[in-house]
Amino acid sequence: MVYKPYFKYLDGPPPLSVSCRRMVRLEEVDVLGIVWHGRYAGYFEDGREEIGRQFGLSYIEFKQAGALLPIRTLHVDYLLPLHYLETFDLETTMHWHEAARLNIEYKIFNSERRLTTQGYSVQMMIDLEGNLLLEAPAFFRDFQKRWRLGELTPCGY
Amino acid sequence: MVYKPYFKYLDGPPPLSVSCRRMVRLEEVDVLGIVWHGRYAGYFEDGREEIGRQFGLSYIEFKQAGALLPIRTLHVDYLLPLHYLETFDLETTMHWHEAARLNIEYKIFNSERRLTTQGYSVQMMIDLEGNLLLEAPAFFRDFQKRWRLGELTPCGY
Amino acid sequence: MVYKPYFKYLDGPPPLSVSCRRMVRLEEVDVLGIVWHGRYAGYFEDGREEIGRQFGLSYIEFKQAGALLPIRTLHVDYLLPLHYLETFDLETTMHWHEAARLNIEYKIFNSERRLTTQGYSVQMMIDLEGNLLLEAPAFFRDFQKRWRLGELTPCGY
Amino acid sequence: MVYKPYFKYLDGPPPLSVSCRRMVRLEEVDVLGIVWHGRYAGYFEDGREEIGRQFGLSYIEFKQAGALLPIRTLHVDYLLPLHYLETFDLETTMHWHEAARLNIEYKIFNSERRLTTQGYSVQMMIDLEGNLLLEAPAFFRDFQKRWRLGELTPCGY
Repeated sequence: MVYKPYFKYLDGPPPLSVSCRRMVRLEEVDVLGIVWHGRYAGYFEDGREEIGRQFGLSYIEFKQAGALLPIRTLHVDYLLPLHYLETFDLETTMHWHEAARLNIEYKIFNSERRLTTQGYSVQMMIDLEGNLLLEAPAFFRDFQKRWRLGELTPCGY
Repeated sequence: MVYKPYFKYLDGPPPLSVSCRRMVRLEEVDVLGIVWHGRYAGYFEDGREEIGRQFGLSYIEFKQAGALLPIRTLHVDYLLPLHYLETFDLETTMHWHEAARLNIEYKIFNSERRLTTQGYSVQMMIDLEGNLLLEAPAFFRDFQKRWRLGELTPCGY
Repeated sequence: MVYKPYFKYLDGPPPLSVSCRRMVRLEEVDVLGIVWHGRYAGYFEDGREEIGRQFGLSYIEFKQAGALLPIRTLHVDYLLPLHYLETFDLETTMHWHEAARLNIEYKIFNSERRLTTQGYSVQMMIDLEGNLLLEAPAFFRDFQKRWRLGELTPCGY
Repeated sequence: MVYKPYFKYLDGPPPLSVSCRRMVRLEEVDVLGIVWHGRYAGYFEDGREEIGRQFGLSYIEFKQAGALLPIRTLHVDYLLPLHYLETFDLETTMHWHEAARLNIEYKIFNSERRLTTQGYSVQMMIDLEGNLLLEAPAFFRDFQKRWRLGELTPCGY
């Protein structure tokens, strides 16, 4: 199946992508012998953590800057199942946005390079008391500046 | 926040709703002290099970009729967090569809009757070998007939 | 199978028991069609929460008194499996101990009143910085006093 | 803390060990900011899967030989917590037993090489109908023969 994009193109730099490889664990498999659909939320979170590691945008960096990133929307389209012991590649792509917000897309490919799952998440930024932040922390605005100027290395696959 | 519907109105009978009350368990709470976003997939599944129990449409009935109902799409909008020990009401609504498919919506209300979460799922029907079913099993088509004729009791709240 | 006790009798008042009834959720069932063994940690935690609710000894009361109760040991003996949609009774029993420590036993019975699972946990008490507490918070020592004097109502089944 | 062994020495060949390295995932961390105690069941299962991979003793091999390996006992001693983003080493050791049974021990070390967790599991063997097997499948008895003769390479660390 062909990947269908979720986010409209916004005037800005190209998206940033990372990739990680993973094997399905026995605990993740349900009564039908496939990865239980709710587990993909955890897979996508692994993808966000990989983006965080590669670009210095992890939960820890944001927390130290006084911000948290609750999930506002999660959307998953399940095209093909994943089975116990299957190895898969998770590609996580962060799309440009000017506001204090993260728009992230996910694609999972199995070992035959077939698209099994796609989805997206939207995260808002709040301070440690739970108030919505209209402006991102300074370190993230610096990151946006370097992203816009093309000074970041999109880690690829 | 006001609930925004997901499914367009299709010519057919009114939707069927059930409601169940639940308490947040310690295991479901994450490092931010709120229900981890991935847990809502399990809450929504509890809602589908309640629909199944009340209308004879559970995983077991379908399996005995040679069908399975994999999730094709899951969508969750997180409006307010849920906290440890909060009691919440999950309303699960099945919308009319003629095809071999289940369109289900979910709304979660906290104890102040505020909408914390809404979402939807789409399930297709497959046989036990994994082939897409274009026609639902006989028992489900009977159910659709009674639904259309208004002979079902929507269990409500 | 006959239940085999884990804790030696210590000079003190009889143990306190609570009981709660639960249904197996689809998410908890593994590829073998039975509750995945790791899920029982969550079931036992539900039992501890029930003890907490009935005796004012929950995570929240301890936290307000500046104490946390990390699990020091968890032991589970799996005698019979639990299946999807099975209803079971979880009996949680707190055994007397003088120290700043909770010794709790668990028994799960299925709908035929057969013992499916038994186990125990040991919890130590630490302060919010992680230091071991040799003396329990005042509210818990008051609770121990009333327990010893037989002034508590063991909630039973 | 010093590791305390669980299984008595049985007359037979030395145990077989494997090691795997892992990072704590955000989903695994609880409200106290440490890995929720129930998650270690999954970590230990990852260890059994690594044993399975290295010695041809996985769930799949047993299933093809008509056998399943339900967990009979799980025991976990929690000595130190694991935190978000910590890397740890899981050492999984299978101890010799003549019967149709697997006695496996686990040790988790953090990045400072301190023992954080230890535990053990006992698995019995049953056929696909659930009957206890008194004799292991042929492929496992061959494995036991090579183990006893010292013909296996214990994969180490």
